[in-house]
Amino acid sequence: MSSIRTDLALEAREIAGERTRQQEIQGVVVESIARDGITVTRVEVNSPAGEKSIGKPMGNYVTLEIPGIRDRDPEYEEKVSMQLAEEINRLVELDEKDTVLIVGLGNWNVTPDAVGPKVVERIMVTRHIFEFVPDQVDERMRPVCAISPGVLGITGMETGEIIKGVVERVKPDLVIAVDALASRKTERIGTTIQIADTGISPGAGIGNKRMGINMETLGVPTLAIGIPTVVYAYTIGKDSIEMVLKKLAEGAPREDSLQKVLSSLGEQDIDSVINEVLTQGLGDLVVTPKEVDVLIDDVCSMIADGINLAVHKGITLEEINRFLH
Amino acid sequence: MSSIRTDLALEAREIAGERTRQQEIQGVVVESIARDGITVTRVEVNSPAGEKSIGKPMGNYVTLEIPGIRDRDPEYEEKVSMQLAEEINRLVELDEKDTVLIVGLGNWNVTPDAVGPKVVERIMVTRHIFEFVPDQVDERMRPVCAISPGVLGITGMETGEIIKGVVERVKPDLVIAVDALASRKTERIGTTIQIADTGISPGAGIGNKRMGINMETLGVPTLAIGIPTVVYAYTIGKDSIEMVLKKLAEGAPREDSLQKVLSSLGEQDIDSVINEVLTQGLGDLVVTPKEVDVLIDDVCSMIADGINLAVHKGITLEEINRFLH
Amino acid sequence: MSSIRTDLALEAREIAGERTRQQEIQGVVVESIARDGITVTRVEVNSPAGEKSIGKPMGNYVTLEIPGIRDRDPEYEEKVSMQLAEEINRLVELDEKDTVLIVGLGNWNVTPDAVGPKVVERIMVTRHIFEFVPDQVDERMRPVCAISPGVLGITGMETGEIIKGVVERVKPDLVIAVDALASRKTERIGTTIQIADTGISPGAGIGNKRMGINMETLGVPTLAIGIPTVVYAYTIGKDSIEMVLKKLAEGAPREDSLQKVLSSLGEQDIDSVINEVLTQGLGDLVVTPKEVDVLIDDVCSMIADGINLAVHKGITLEEINRFLH
Amino acid sequence: MSSIRTDLALEAREIAGERTRQQEIQGVVVESIARDGITVTRVEVNSPAGEKSIGKPMGNYVTLEIPGIRDRDPEYEEKVSMQLAEEINRLVELDEKDTVLIVGLGNWNVTPDAVGPKVVERIMVTRHIFEFVPDQVDERMRPVCAISPGVLGITGMETGEIIKGVVERVKPDLVIAVDALASRKTERIGTTIQIADTGISPGAGIGNKRMGINMETLGVPTLAIGIPTVVYAYTIGKDSIEMVLKKLAEGAPREDSLQKVLSSLGEQDIDSVINEVLTQGLGDLVVTPKEVDVLIDDVCSMIADGINLAVHKGITLEEINRFLH
Repeated sequence: MSSIRTDLALEAREIAGERTRQQEIQGVVVESIARDGITVTRVEVNSPAGEKSIGKPMGNYVTLEIPGIRDRDPEYEEKVSMQLAEEINRLVELDEKDTVLIVGLGNWNVTPDAVGPKVVERIMVTRHIFEFVPDQVDERMRPVCAISPGVLGITGMETGEIIKGVVERVKPDLVIAVDALASRKTERIGTTIQIADTGISPGAGIGNKRMGINMETLGVPTLAIGIPTVVYAYTIGKDSIEMVLKKLAEGAPREDSLQKVLSSLGEQDIDSVINEVLTQGLGDLVVTPKEVDVLIDDVCSMIADGINLAVHKGITLEEINRFLH
Repeated sequence: MSSIRTDLALEAREIAGERTRQQEIQGVVVESIARDGITVTRVEVNSPAGEKSIGKPMGNYVTLEIPGIRDRDPEYEEKVSMQLAEEINRLVELDEKDTVLIVGLGNWNVTPDAVGPKVVERIMVTRHIFEFVPDQVDERMRPVCAISPGVLGITGMETGEIIKGVVERVKPDLVIAVDALASRKTERIGTTIQIADTGISPGAGIGNKRMGINMETLGVPTLAIGIPTVVYAYTIGKDSIEMVLKKLAEGAPREDSLQKVLSSLGEQDIDSVINEVLTQGLGDLVVTPKEVDVLIDDVCSMIADGINLAVHKGITLEEINRFLH
Repeated sequence: MSSIRTDLALEAREIAGERTRQQEIQGVVVESIARDGITVTRVEVNSPAGEKSIGKPMGNYVTLEIPGIRDRDPEYEEKVSMQLAEEINRLVELDEKDTVLIVGLGNWNVTPDAVGPKVVERIMVTRHIFEFVPDQVDERMRPVCAISPGVLGITGMETGEIIKGVVERVKPDLVIAVDALASRKTERIGTTIQIADTGISPGAGIGNKRMGINMETLGVPTLAIGIPTVVYAYTIGKDSIEMVLKKLAEGAPREDSLQKVLSSLGEQDIDSVINEVLTQGLGDLVVTPKEVDVLIDDVCSMIADGINLAVHKGITLEEINRFLH
Repeated sequence: MSSIRTDLALEAREIAGERTRQQEIQGVVVESIARDGITVTRVEVNSPAGEKSIGKPMGNYVTLEIPGIRDRDPEYEEKVSMQLAEEINRLVELDEKDTVLIVGLGNWNVTPDAVGPKVVERIMVTRHIFEFVPDQVDERMRPVCAISPGVLGITGMETGEIIKGVVERVKPDLVIAVDALASRKTERIGTTIQIADTGISPGAGIGNKRMGINMETLGVPTLAIGIPTVVYAYTIGKDSIEMVLKKLAEGAPREDSLQKVLSSLGEQDIDSVINEVLTQGLGDLVVTPKEVDVLIDDVCSMIADGINLAVHKGITLEEINRFLH
């Protein structure tokens, strides 16, 4: 309804804060650490109240903000991958030879939706080596397999169905699902990574029937990793309007009639006008910067390398490079 | 400055109309015909006054609005190509065996900028047949050549320079330059085609030095054909704000204080606030629907076919299909 | 062992004929019809003796030879798709609303191995419409779903495993697996289509353990459709040598010593020399014409359309075009 | 005439040696150095006699054989780039701020012909920085520009014509043309780099009229860099036959009739039979390993980096990586 739509728990919490004008949101714990140009924010939703406030299921959401990736500094990129690996390992517990299945969600034909398939392309897949040529296994490796199943319109099957079929045969101990996200702010596109131990919740697809991809549906622990690649046009419109109204209020002298008017208008009055105006023109329109192809290529590599480092303990980035074609 | 940016003369005229609140703009003649689901609008800028009002050089700008392409009806698509061919031929005069050079502008690595290269891929290129195997020339053909030179950041050379070099050696009698455009409205993306006999004006690139691609710089008549693939985020923001302010004013009772405030605010006051707010956050950000890949593929084929029909008189669409790989 | 390797039953039968110098091969029935530039050959392997002679499992193998596709005549292409649909329907029995799963085998990163994924891209997928928006179902449609799972080196999972997982959840009544094949002759590349009701036999992959994709492994009838995209370099070498030796023998006068030598050399002597020479240099090397990208694009469309026509009874090619993006 | 076709001077010299059964070829000087897994061979054709013997114009041909690239060792790859840079600089003389134009020849739609365009994608293009933002120029840089003009069938213009047009406007001091080559041996594909200071000679294209791309046609020094991506099927056939005949001769006892026959057959008799047989079936067919996509990607990066290091003196590979998107 009020509906700035975002897939980032970090932003959802921020919006809840703006709405309630409160510093603290019950049931939501946030901690944030900045180091080496990477800001790690850990949002824990630990009660149904928190779940309701920010509209995300109970669980842990870790965000890496990495604005520095625009400088293409290889050292920085390595730090991001290593930090990501560390955060993944804080959220999962794996025995030494547990099998991991990486799932690349999304549509490879639509650039901003192709994050999952792009990451899967760089995953260091090893399960077949364990199966067929076990003597070539490096002892630091773990059996890892990967698939990008495609989207409903391409396969005619729910992605959750396909994944469940594969999980039932391959019996992994952990699933990591990688996906593209929507954020509130365009500057987050390609510069923020979110890890969630809640997996992926059922979306609002055709007929509202889409399966989630999580512990509940798959029967194994499921981590979701995503990066924003789009912003709803509605969000751009709404944020613009709010900024202008705020600016007008700030600029007007205290006793000015505009001031009075703006403060007398209930939040809801303005909201309903905004919603009426924007849902006509920009309804579900999702926008993305035109250079999104370039923006996300690097961060997809970093995510893949973070996953590679997290699952194959002790392998170096150089060895990963050598392994991959 | 106030700056809703658009490359469409049609929209530029509309904006000038809104600004001046006048039906007629001096020096700009508009006529519009709708038939078979295609709206053809011919904007003629015929005086320096018109040029100044809408910010486009004197000349002819023809727009085909083709919202029906979303239905993917092959018959409709053929009509669009044939109408486009007709409009091209209204703007140029060619002798029977005059050579035409098609130039695909833009960056093939950035989807919404790849219109030019995509169109060139489907051009029925024949000049080498005339040169090397003249006995295989179908008499309805004309010598046509084509190139997608790439953008400044890829080549290190101004596109105009490359084109001029090629023009000087190949000596075509007409250049048709195809490019991606920015529009004001997201719904125009992939659904509007503009043809201009002014060629392409020097843009506001690095150091403001970029050459135009037109009669003046190339020395031969130059037609520009384009389709919108992006909207400036600024435009979305500004349009949203204006719609809301208008809505608020409409909704408030006549004597209401909000009414007074809004009407007392000069146009410029609001404009300056809007500009201040938006240029910070959304400055040069260009956005595009995430399905732009899919949206423009079809229209690029139609443009190519329109050009093919226009230059090779009497060739059918079926023959074009057979000719092309 | 002597091993001209081919995936085409047609060629396997031919080679068996050359080896045994017999017109008839026991347990293999061949019939052939040519019409409209399409040669349909139906090879039935109906006994274990036949199976052994040509090295293909018992079942039906239908070949469409379509050399005419080089002319890119749309009418011819339609005929091929329609003939293919007819041959598919001769081999399978489906109830009206039976579900079909199309599987695109092979590696999309390696052009000559990308036939399966390319065909799947053009499949008219409808199962999700039946599930989620049943009122939009055209009554001539059948529920069709499709997937290109990738190859072992990409996923770490046997393709057969993935398919079996999907089959167990989605429970299709028929699987159609599309794959790239190896042929004996380069001129067959992109110009021959094989349909087999035996599915796909376990190959000679890593550790010789790869699962077949057929009735036995999946538990549902499985059709295999393929086109040759490669020839073993070994085959080119061996055929060249045999042609030369034959030519030398033909050319020499009857009583000539060369004649004697060549005829005195046992088939096996020559074979063992050829094998020794060729397996060193050209062992497993598979070659493909450099224009393979272009050669197979068209035939992949025709195969997809043939499948579309076969499964959605009464749909026209024009409707298929409109349905697909 | 008998015509094992190869673009490598190294192999042309080898074939001339086989034909004449002589160690030395008049007018052709060869020296070879192996170090760090890289074999550098410098062939100098220094007289018309040499030119005639090996069928290559007078000039210098340097070959880097780099079989080790299959191991994907980053250190080795760096050494290759550095060695390539060194060899380029031995062949050209440039003043400090001389402009270099890199030309990527070939067709980006046909994988084995896409070497030139792929290399150009990774060139560190800087000429526009010198022109438009000179204060951002790193003093170690040189003005470099680049273009991949496409092939005759795509543009309708001879590549040489386009390049000449660009050269006349941009006035570079050196042209480096990158292209895909044909070799005699499949194992050279993607593992050999040739640099030639003769540029590229007119080929045997449509009507035999294609312009060369060299000092003579462009008016500036022109270096050609290439890697083999294809082998003529004819070559595979002929080499196979010769190996077998040799093997048969070796294997037969001295006094055997086969021995006599084979030695009594003139070289030409066999040649004419081979030619007759092979030109029918394999005439102009060019083959390439099916993994050519993967094979050449790495070597294209190394060539681009070698060129980058050669033209921008003192820049490191890490800085090149950072510069490129």
